[in-house]
Amino acid sequence: MEDYPLAGPPAPLLIRNLLDRVLTWAPQQTIVYRDLRELTYTEFYQRLQRLANTLRALGIKPGDRVGVMDYDSHRYLEFFFAVPMIGAVLHTINFRLAPEQISYTINHAGDQILFLHTDFIPVTTLLRAELASVKACVLLQDVAPPPESPLVFVGEYEALLAAASPRFEFPEFDENTVATLFYTTGTTGHPKGVFFTHRQLVLHSLSAGWTFAAHSDAHSLRAGDVYMPLTPMFHVHAWGVPYVATALGLKQIYPGRYEPHLILSLIARHRVTFSHCVPAILQMLLHHPASPGTDLKGWKVLIGGAALPKGLAREAAARGIHILGGYGMSETCPIVAVSFPKPDANLGDAEAVFDVSTRTGFPTLLVQAAVFDPECRPLPPGPENVGELVLRAPWLTTGYFRQPTESAQLWRGGWLHTGDVAYVDHEGYIRITDRLKDVIKIGGEWISSLELENALSQHPGIREVAVIGLPDARWEERPHAEVVLHEAARGTVTPRQLVTFLREFIDRGAIHQRAILTVVRIVDAIPRTSVGKPDKKRLREALHSANRPADRDVE
Amino acid sequence: MEDYPLAGPPAPLLIRNLLDRVLTWAPQQTIVYRDLRELTYTEFYQRLQRLANTLRALGIKPGDRVGVMDYDSHRYLEFFFAVPMIGAVLHTINFRLAPEQISYTINHAGDQILFLHTDFIPVTTLLRAELASVKACVLLQDVAPPPESPLVFVGEYEALLAAASPRFEFPEFDENTVATLFYTTGTTGHPKGVFFTHRQLVLHSLSAGWTFAAHSDAHSLRAGDVYMPLTPMFHVHAWGVPYVATALGLKQIYPGRYEPHLILSLIARHRVTFSHCVPAILQMLLHHPASPGTDLKGWKVLIGGAALPKGLAREAAARGIHILGGYGMSETCPIVAVSFPKPDANLGDAEAVFDVSTRTGFPTLLVQAAVFDPECRPLPPGPENVGELVLRAPWLTTGYFRQPTESAQLWRGGWLHTGDVAYVDHEGYIRITDRLKDVIKIGGEWISSLELENALSQHPGIREVAVIGLPDARWEERPHAEVVLHEAARGTVTPRQLVTFLREFIDRGAIHQRAILTVVRIVDAIPRTSVGKPDKKRLREALHSANRPADRDVE
Repeated sequence: MEDYPLAGPPAPLLIRNLLDRVLTWAPQQTIVYRDLRELTYTEFYQRLQRLANTLRALGIKPGDRVGVMDYDSHRYLEFFFAVPMIGAVLHTINFRLAPEQISYTINHAGDQILFLHTDFIPVTTLLRAELASVKACVLLQDVAPPPESPLVFVGEYEALLAAASPRFEFPEFDENTVATLFYTTGTTGHPKGVFFTHRQLVLHSLSAGWTFAAHSDAHSLRAGDVYMPLTPMFHVHAWGVPYVATALGLKQIYPGRYEPHLILSLIARHRVTFSHCVPAILQMLLHHPASPGTDLKGWKVLIGGAALPKGLAREAAARGIHILGGYGMSETCPIVAVSFPKPDANLGDAEAVFDVSTRTGFPTLLVQAAVFDPECRPLPPGPENVGELVLRAPWLTTGYFRQPTESAQLWRGGWLHTGDVAYVDHEGYIRITDRLKDVIKIGGEWISSLELENALSQHPGIREVAVIGLPDARWEERPHAEVVLHEAARGTVTPRQLVTFLREFIDRGAIHQRAILTVVRIVDAIPRTSVGKPDKKRLREALHSANRPADRDVE
Repeated sequence: MEDYPLAGPPAPLLIRNLLDRVLTWAPQQTIVYRDLRELTYTEFYQRLQRLANTLRALGIKPGDRVGVMDYDSHRYLEFFFAVPMIGAVLHTINFRLAPEQISYTINHAGDQILFLHTDFIPVTTLLRAELASVKACVLLQDVAPPPESPLVFVGEYEALLAAASPRFEFPEFDENTVATLFYTTGTTGHPKGVFFTHRQLVLHSLSAGWTFAAHSDAHSLRAGDVYMPLTPMFHVHAWGVPYVATALGLKQIYPGRYEPHLILSLIARHRVTFSHCVPAILQMLLHHPASPGTDLKGWKVLIGGAALPKGLAREAAARGIHILGGYGMSETCPIVAVSFPKPDANLGDAEAVFDVSTRTGFPTLLVQAAVFDPECRPLPPGPENVGELVLRAPWLTTGYFRQPTESAQLWRGGWLHTGDVAYVDHEGYIRITDRLKDVIKIGGEWISSLELENALSQHPGIREVAVIGLPDARWEERPHAEVVLHEAARGTVTPRQLVTFLREFIDRGAIHQRAILTVVRIVDAIPRTSVGKPDKKRLREALHSANRPADRDVE
């Protein structure tokens, strides 16, 4: 190495470096929590130092796991930074899991300390005896006085911070140090721990940040934006966007527990310009009684977690919302594709825009995406070449925490296997047609449940729809659609009409002919997973054991 | 490591990854060379593979240095990618150096092969016998037939590419592999070799790309822009912007040898939206006879290499050009600061805009900047705290090629020492007041030659100005200004008037009182360095040995 001297110190990519310029760029910019609290970035950084001192005083050493159960808050943003910045690992606990799963994840992670919002005292009290690794709990409360509880707390967050020194020298260390850990619930077995290093989170921020800044004006995230996440911070770091927003020094609004009325009023009061959420959350906000009175014009919303249905895209656009689909999963940090239009795209009318924005997405900068056939051979572009989507990028999880076998399975052949069925279209956009497990096999042909959902969602009477495959003696499987109607359509729209509606799509070749076999059932609600997606696993279990609706309902 | 399995393959940051998405994002977008050639990105990538096969066939192995002497061209862009992508090191030769320095840099680098534009055949012929490491020369020519020359070429670029296979599997390797090498000319001694790794060039692209996309609309570099460099590609990879523009899939225009008339016509024909250059180049274009007939409205120009004078900023703005200052040096890859306005800045009038855009710059993402006193202690913000600007960022050169002592000196105390005198203002912008060596010491007080240049440049009669300090028996040093007047001002504006003009700045406290001691001399031209900056070293030498102008000229 004498030819090329290494005279400079190592220059690792650390989460702390995302703060390098923002403290002088936007020292007076604010971070808002509900209608309760407003901090400047200068105060935020002081609080990070107080939190670091608090964590050290509580015995947290590099590598220790720190568990957090909180809604989206300024506190959570503080954990996003301060915990990894002292070299510890932030475990963002999914509080929507069943109690036994919460207990499993805390024990599997080996959390040393838990930070708990008051709302999660009951479940933690229930589980406390099982949580062997947990040495202490800290209370996160919005309003005094502390609640009555048998749970022992070493202190309350604000009191501990107030007592701690506002000076802390954040250390420099290897960029491959693990920063965060959280659990993803699969279709089978226990939740699996996904983890990310400092390097990965910084590179994800750079790629997502650049991609969102450099493309369509209508969907950009840039200096001057006001950001509010509507994806839980426990879920893949709220898609990593809080790191991006903080690095840019944006005004940020954290809504706490999701209450549609409060969210709408925060959007209006702070003129929020950029959010991201699953389709169900946007739907909930659009259909809330306070929604018509709220000006949502110009609000940029990234939709992920599930495909963006065209029906929802049209409804949002009618309110002046700039809506865009994105793609990622827990294992991918998560952003790997966003459906930005190309600068030279011919987007003459609104439908042409929806056609692009409802695609799965175009790979973001530094992402390699391919579609593999079952023998792991790459397939060429084109809708006829459907296979499994596989990925490479510098920020994908390298495995599952303490699960070497599942890790090797995830990365077989040197590519991360998404379990999503997709093709790459002739313009290079990824088009997910289904989850591998959600493909419906009808007499040897594969039909995508997503395509059926997308077609049905365009019926004006339909509010929500989920399609699964159910066993069928003759066809092997047959599509089954659970449908929730809009208020006005109840009692007038019938399953038969909906199948007739599907036929129009079949007739013009938009969906597979055998979609005509779809069984439609009108229901009051569709079960959802803890992150708001239709819970097809639960649906499948329920329908397998129940009597299936008579075929005469549909034709 | 069993807790955190590393099941995925290494995910290095390699230059090839900047191309991951662009071949499907913009396969038909074009790269233009003068009025001679237009390639699509698809063709460009095929040519990279042909060039890689050509380099291999010529015996180039990983680590070997490949020297290039060419103007800004599509070919140069091909070298930017293909040479590092096979693991070799691209030496971008500064053809503006004196022949003995060119020979020194080629020998010091140990170049194995030289790619030479026809214009550089004479100098290479002169030097050929001294170039011991060079095994072969390849001819780069714009038009047939090949020139008469005693120099032996192994082939002509286009012929070699045409004969090579268009298929090449670019290998994956360690991201810390050196990619580029070039020489910077200091004030003393031989040129020094500065080098950058794949990781550094990718991170520089991510930071610069994000910074330019996320800030001011008026100065952005985003999808849809048309890019033309006006900084030589041998000089710090044309500031690294070709990597950024290629990753975004932008239309790119390479102007070849700088001919103002051709440059203006290329800007007009291709509607160029983004360029970067030193002040002298912009000045040359604005004052060219073809300039008034060229619509430059909306052209975004990043100015670097020297401070952006307010006079030039006003002149450019009057033509509708969006002008912005940036800062960097060979050792910093180079972009580390750009003078973007803050989103909440109060920019009521044009002068307020110029006040921000002519500052040195605000650190870009992931850059740590500080000002040190002579004992290497950090100084607080404020114009009274002037010291040396020092930097840390993941893409700064780690040293000088084969010069361990100079490398250690550059990085003393763990920070890269820029040699620039600066302070950080109360808004966090860096303000270079001078090069350490260009500070003028008048009776124990330090006065910035840049401040004096900036003040004088605002006189309507002045076209160019350079200020140095010359020895003075009474004051230790005394400012000496070399001034080039506009045509119309010749014979009417006198040195005395210019000193009176300076007095106005002194009277309102904008510059140091002792600036009144400035000696002004009106000249026909100011000598420039090979990269277009005023050559103060040459000025100083010339003036030290010449008779100094009589004081009566100025007072």
